[in-house]
Amino acid sequence: MKPLGILGGGQLARMMAFEAHAMGIPVAILSEDESDPAAQVTSLWTKGKLDDRKDLARFLENCSLVTFESEFLDAGLLEEISVETRTPVLPKPQHMAALQDRLSQKRLLEKHKLPTSPFMQIKSAQEARDAFRKFKGELVFKKRRFGYDGYGTFVVRSEKDLESFLERLEQESVGFIAEKFIPFKREIAVMVARSKNGRTLHLPFVETLQENSRCLWVKGPLRETTSFKTLARKLEKFLESVGYVGIMGIELFDTGKGFLINELAPRVHNSGHYSQNALSDNQFSLHVKAVMGIEIGGPELLTKGFAMWNLLGSSEREPSWRLPADVKLHWYGKKKNRAGRKMGHINVLGSSPEDALRKAKRARAEFDV
Amino acid sequence: MKPLGILGGGQLARMMAFEAHAMGIPVAILSEDESDPAAQVTSLWTKGKLDDRKDLARFLENCSLVTFESEFLDAGLLEEISVETRTPVLPKPQHMAALQDRLSQKRLLEKHKLPTSPFMQIKSAQEARDAFRKFKGELVFKKRRFGYDGYGTFVVRSEKDLESFLERLEQESVGFIAEKFIPFKREIAVMVARSKNGRTLHLPFVETLQENSRCLWVKGPLRETTSFKTLARKLEKFLESVGYVGIMGIELFDTGKGFLINELAPRVHNSGHYSQNALSDNQFSLHVKAVMGIEIGGPELLTKGFAMWNLLGSSEREPSWRLPADVKLHWYGKKKNRAGRKMGHINVLGSSPEDALRKAKRARAEFDV
Repeated sequence: MKPLGILGGGQLARMMAFEAHAMGIPVAILSEDESDPAAQVTSLWTKGKLDDRKDLARFLENCSLVTFESEFLDAGLLEEISVETRTPVLPKPQHMAALQDRLSQKRLLEKHKLPTSPFMQIKSAQEARDAFRKFKGELVFKKRRFGYDGYGTFVVRSEKDLESFLERLEQESVGFIAEKFIPFKREIAVMVARSKNGRTLHLPFVETLQENSRCLWVKGPLRETTSFKTLARKLEKFLESVGYVGIMGIELFDTGKGFLINELAPRVHNSGHYSQNALSDNQFSLHVKAVMGIEIGGPELLTKGFAMWNLLGSSEREPSWRLPADVKLHWYGKKKNRAGRKMGHINVLGSSPEDALRKAKRARAEFDV
Repeated sequence: MKPLGILGGGQLARMMAFEAHAMGIPVAILSEDESDPAAQVTSLWTKGKLDDRKDLARFLENCSLVTFESEFLDAGLLEEISVETRTPVLPKPQHMAALQDRLSQKRLLEKHKLPTSPFMQIKSAQEARDAFRKFKGELVFKKRRFGYDGYGTFVVRSEKDLESFLERLEQESVGFIAEKFIPFKREIAVMVARSKNGRTLHLPFVETLQENSRCLWVKGPLRETTSFKTLARKLEKFLESVGYVGIMGIELFDTGKGFLINELAPRVHNSGHYSQNALSDNQFSLHVKAVMGIEIGGPELLTKGFAMWNLLGSSEREPSWRLPADVKLHWYGKKKNRAGRKMGHINVLGSSPEDALRKAKRARAEFDV
């Protein structure tokens, strides 16, 4: 049996590998360094670059099917090699391409009548000034590609902000979009999945907190109100109508009057990590099942409250900790600690989302990361 | 950081490796074949024999601490090499030695006033005949060592049975014990753990069913009555007084009038596999924590009912299956299927132990193993 291949050796690949192993699916990892988080957890590691035609072709040839942990790959190249080697890549490279570019992602949301903030394409200083006027001096410029964890995002709320953005714009070749700034009550997220065999499902809605544009914690479940149900149905239909296969992470703003989609990611997502310990099946397992065509079904919620807290590096010191007994640690085994780097996360259960979050915060204090 | 070493490459080592990985503890495996279940799930696999002095010494030198998945190792050799290399082995080799021999295990139970069936040491045909009389023709002869899954167990209920056992006895050099045959209402099991730092805990009591002396299924939780509580306290005290470190699997007979300990195993155990999906922390994680000196605490039960069903091979055909969405599969990735071989197990949750068991039985029918 040829293995399931995962492009990338980071923590998302690592956690997908655990779930594939458990289901008896051999897993191969393609990454650059044998100390990468996912390279450590399988005997089938291949050294290679994710943008190298030869490395990719050799890897795909030896896999039955390939998935990925990051959407920032050369989708065109991947599609070509997938056709040449007859090894399917799921989610499809066309979906990777559509979502890796914020402009095409926004257009896709519009086309499918999914709620999102007003936006404009920005190709010049003049267009940036037009956007500033149109969005009444409250807007966000975002790089079309390679933006994550706040990199490539510029909040503009004054003429001065605008001027410093314009300086940056001159140096960049990658292109931007402008979005109306959305004042929100809270940020929320949901994971939606569609299996190769057509079945869709969504996990519970959760609240997320971003600090310095990086996810700090997640708590849930949010009570599934009618408006959540309607939104979830729309999202599942969206996956169906584009023929998406795999799990998708969806970040939203709750404005108090409704929901606006902030971002889609065609992969397992930090906001879904809680599922490892709070649900009867988790996002990593569901993603593997979805791409492999194994039956998926709405997992059961096992607790009244859960929280996930990211362990972000604060220095280059060797991390150390005392792990409380009622806290599940998911450490990524990264070789080096670094300020802001995602080194691991903890999952905690509780009698309510707030109770779980309180416990998680207390537990976080036991980590010197 | 030197890795945690696990002696053996089977499914128990594999599932311990997953949990160590998740906690950021690098895991090294010593086993004979790179296709072994545990060898597939780490980059730190070492080829070697568990009874070879050189292989063991080389392995222990490169580990910070070593544990094992089977108690049938040369405990004396292990102790020696542990001292030479200054690499601790936990559970301690002395406990491995005491439990791998049914005679010393029985004596240990007696010494600590733990309930177990009457027994005799058998060194000759004459002693076997004495036992037959003493236990009124209803007894079980068991090989002192290397007995598992019914191998080495001889139930004797007639003169004819006795004669065929005596023929066998002549050919064996390993030694036997005789136990009074215990008619039981049901078989039950419990996992008890003690951490390096002295904390003890036990998991819920479960009912188990053995078919042809092999575990077929487990269901639980059993309601923790006063007599269970008393028994659990005794067992935890026992671990404490002998200074045991790690998890221990305990199989018992429920005679309807009380409990008799049938067997102790100084390791993770098939009867504890349910914990992977029914508890907030599982036996593999708890064992790793216990030997590493990481805090352990009574895991929370996440469901009203759970069941585990073993997937035992029935032929040498390549296994195939349809995995129902509400069933968690733990497949061991063994190279070859074989009649009676443990190939994997499934865990199922339900509204009661019986409901979970019904679902598990239905799910079992989807596997052609």
